[in-house]
Amino acid sequence: MRFSATVTVRLRPGIADPEGSTIERAVSALGIAGVSGVRGGRSFTFEVEADSESAATAVAVDVATRLLSNPVIEDHAVSIEAK
Amino acid sequence: MRFSATVTVRLRPGIADPEGSTIERAVSALGIAGVSGVRGGRSFTFEVEADSESAATAVAVDVATRLLSNPVIEDHAVSIEAK
Repeated sequence: MRFSATVTVRLRPGIADPEGSTIERAVSALGIAGVSGVRGGRSFTFEVEADSESAATAVAVDVATRLLSNPVIEDHAVSIEAK
Repeated sequence: MRFSATVTVRLRPGIADPEGSTIERAVSALGIAGVSGVRGGRSFTFEVEADSESAATAVAVDVATRLLSNPVIEDHAVSIEAK
């Protein structure tokens, strides 16, 4: 079976995010009001060929932890959907 | 009212994604099988102070189109949630 996986990687709360701060200043400079707490992150999509949804989830979590995120400073969220 | 906004920016289909290709090769090199079609992207979260959900959505779409994405090569998706 074929599954679509989405892995979102974000900095852990409390870790400084200079990209987010820069975006926040740029939002103000553009004259857009009411925006705060901007945090940047990365989002990856891929397809997984596996026998079951739990096997596909295991593969996606493996990719997320070993390759896509730095567990010292980042959290990741994995979602799997059958195609 | 306070809303949480998430903006996901991805390369449009057909645009070459060297980051995704590199990750795909690294996945194989790690011995993880069954993964294909890796695409990278960015995900931003922020808070919006607005009178209604539609006003908050308008602000988030404005930020996404004017600041966070390059419409020539990227698509964006905006989601809004009341806090």
